[in-house]
Amino acid sequence: MAIAQFGKETSSRGEFVRQPNRFTDRITADGSSGRRPEAGRYRLIVSLACPWAHRALIVRGLLGLTEVISLGVVDPIRDERGWRFTLDPENRDPVLGIEFLSEAYLASDPEYAGRVTVPALIDTVSGTVVSNDYPQITLDLSTEWREFHAPGSPDLYPVPLRAEIDALIESIFHNVNNGVYKAGFATGQAAYEKAYLALFAELDRLSARLERSRFLVGDQITEVDIRLFTTLVRFDAVYHGHFKCNREKLSEMPVLWAYARDLFQTPGFGSTVDFDHIKRHYYVTHPKINPTGVVPVGPDPAGWSVPHGRS
Amino acid sequence: MAIAQFGKETSSRGEFVRQPNRFTDRITADGSSGRRPEAGRYRLIVSLACPWAHRALIVRGLLGLTEVISLGVVDPIRDERGWRFTLDPENRDPVLGIEFLSEAYLASDPEYAGRVTVPALIDTVSGTVVSNDYPQITLDLSTEWREFHAPGSPDLYPVPLRAEIDALIESIFHNVNNGVYKAGFATGQAAYEKAYLALFAELDRLSARLERSRFLVGDQITEVDIRLFTTLVRFDAVYHGHFKCNREKLSEMPVLWAYARDLFQTPGFGSTVDFDHIKRHYYVTHPKINPTGVVPVGPDPAGWSVPHGRS
Repeated sequence: MAIAQFGKETSSRGEFVRQPNRFTDRITADGSSGRRPEAGRYRLIVSLACPWAHRALIVRGLLGLTEVISLGVVDPIRDERGWRFTLDPENRDPVLGIEFLSEAYLASDPEYAGRVTVPALIDTVSGTVVSNDYPQITLDLSTEWREFHAPGSPDLYPVPLRAEIDALIESIFHNVNNGVYKAGFATGQAAYEKAYLALFAELDRLSARLERSRFLVGDQITEVDIRLFTTLVRFDAVYHGHFKCNREKLSEMPVLWAYARDLFQTPGFGSTVDFDHIKRHYYVTHPKINPTGVVPVGPDPAGWSVPHGRS
Repeated sequence: MAIAQFGKETSSRGEFVRQPNRFTDRITADGSSGRRPEAGRYRLIVSLACPWAHRALIVRGLLGLTEVISLGVVDPIRDERGWRFTLDPENRDPVLGIEFLSEAYLASDPEYAGRVTVPALIDTVSGTVVSNDYPQITLDLSTEWREFHAPGSPDLYPVPLRAEIDALIESIFHNVNNGVYKAGFATGQAAYEKAYLALFAELDRLSARLERSRFLVGDQITEVDIRLFTTLVRFDAVYHGHFKCNREKLSEMPVLWAYARDLFQTPGFGSTVDFDHIKRHYYVTHPKINPTGVVPVGPDPAGWSVPHGRS
C-alpha cells in the first residue's frame, strides 16, 4: 500500500495528491442518515501511527465514549495486503473476525481498489465500513453522539466558534497536516520546496497566534487543537528527518513546543501517543524514501514531560 | 560511484566497511621518500562536500600553503564516472587538463577499480596521484612542508602532544568521522544502532572534555580539532537527518556547539565551509538512502555566527 502512495497519488509535477475518502456514511442523532448512535454497535479501527486516526482516538477518549464505541488497533507495519490485525490473538480482530482491514473495505465495496485507510468506523453487525471520512468522523463524535458523552465532557466544536475553527482547520490541513506529506512524498525539488515553505509559514502564523492565547481558539481545547496536535507530536520523531521538514525541530520553536507539551500533558492526549508505532510505521513502510527500512533511535521523547508553563 | 559505497563496502552484516586508501606515496622534507616539497608542483583536489578533503583544505590554509600547493575543486555531484571538474571552464581542471578525477587515478594505476576519492594530491608534472591517503596528507603538510609555512603559522601537530592527539584521532575516526557513515550506510538495524550508540557515547566524552579546555588538546588548535570540526560542521545539515544520527542536533549539544562555532569563527575555518556543496552532495548522490534526490531546505546556518563565548 506504501507503493500506491507514490504511484496513483503522485501528480506529473511530483506532487503528492491525497486520494478522496471513499466511505462517507454518517451516524446522526436524529437517525436521518439511516443510522443513529448505538452503544456497542460501532467499532473504530485505528493505527496508533496514523495522525488522521489519532484524532478520532483522542476525541473518543475526551468525550468519554470508550465504552460506547469499541477500538481495534492495527499493526503499524503494513505489508502488501495493507493494514493487519497482527497485534490480536490469532492475527484477527476479536470483534470483526478479520485479518486485514481490507476485508471490511471489500465487504462494503467489492470493487474497491484504492488505498485502505484508517481511521475506519465499522458497523459490527454488517461488518462493513460506515466511514473512513476522518474529518467528519470526529465532528460527528462531538455533535451527533451527545447522548452518550460522559458528564462534564468538553464541547470540542462549540457553535459560536465554528466559523473560526473551520477556517483554521482548512489552512492547517493544507499546510501542516497534509503539508508534511506533500513535503515528504514529493518526488521533485520544486514540489518539496513549495510544501516546505507553506508549512513553515503556517507554523509561524500559528506560533504568533499561540503567543496570545493558550489554545488556537480561545481558552478551551477545540477540534482544531486536536488536529494540529497529531501532526506536531510526530514532528521531531518523523517529519523533521524522514519528510525533510527541517527548518527547525518542534523543540526549537518555543511557543509551539510549549503548546504541544501543554496538550500532551492534558489527560487524554499523551496516553494515546505511541512513538514506537509512529516511528516504525513511517520508516519501515515507505521504501521509496527509506529503502533500508532502518528506524532512527532518536530523538529522546523525554522532553514531552517538561513543564510547559502555559497554564 | 555512490553505488559502490553500498556494494563492495557493505559487509554481510549490513555494516559499512570503508575501502583502504590506494595511493600512499609521501612528500618528505629530506627527500627520503623520493619526493620533496616543491612550490607549484603539487595540486590538491578536493570536494567541498567531503569531510576528509575538507581537513586538507583547512590545514593548507592555516599553514599559509595556498600559494605553494594549488587547489582544484570538483563538482559536488558525482555521476557514474565519479568526481567531475564541471565547475571549471570547458569542464576540465585548468592545470591537469582532465575532466574526471578518475583519469588521474587510472594514469597512476591502469588497473584501479576502487572508488575514486578526494582528497587527492596530484603531481602536476606526471599527472599521477601521489596520495589519496587523507590522514597522512594533513600530517605531512604540518611536518614535512615546514620550509614553506607562512611565518607565525600554528604547529598543528606538536611533538610533545602527539601521543595524546593520536589517541583522540583514533577514537574520533572510528566513532565520529567514520561513525556517521557507519550509521548512515548501514543496511540493517543492528549495524545502524551499534554505530549510533558509539557515536553519541564518543560525543558525550568529547563534550565532557571540552567543558574543561577550549580545544581538544590544551589551549591551541591541533590536527585533531580540525578532524572533529569537519564532521561537526556537517552534522545538522546532513548527518542528523540523512544518516539518522538524531539523538540531538549539534545545536542541541551546548558544549560541542559552542566549540564548533569557536572553530568556525576562527580564520581559515568558516570560509572553507560550503553548505550548498555539502547538502547537494550527500542528498543527491546516495540514491540507496535518498532515492528522490530531494535536498532539504533547512536547517538555517545562521546560528554558526552566534558568539561562542569560549575565548
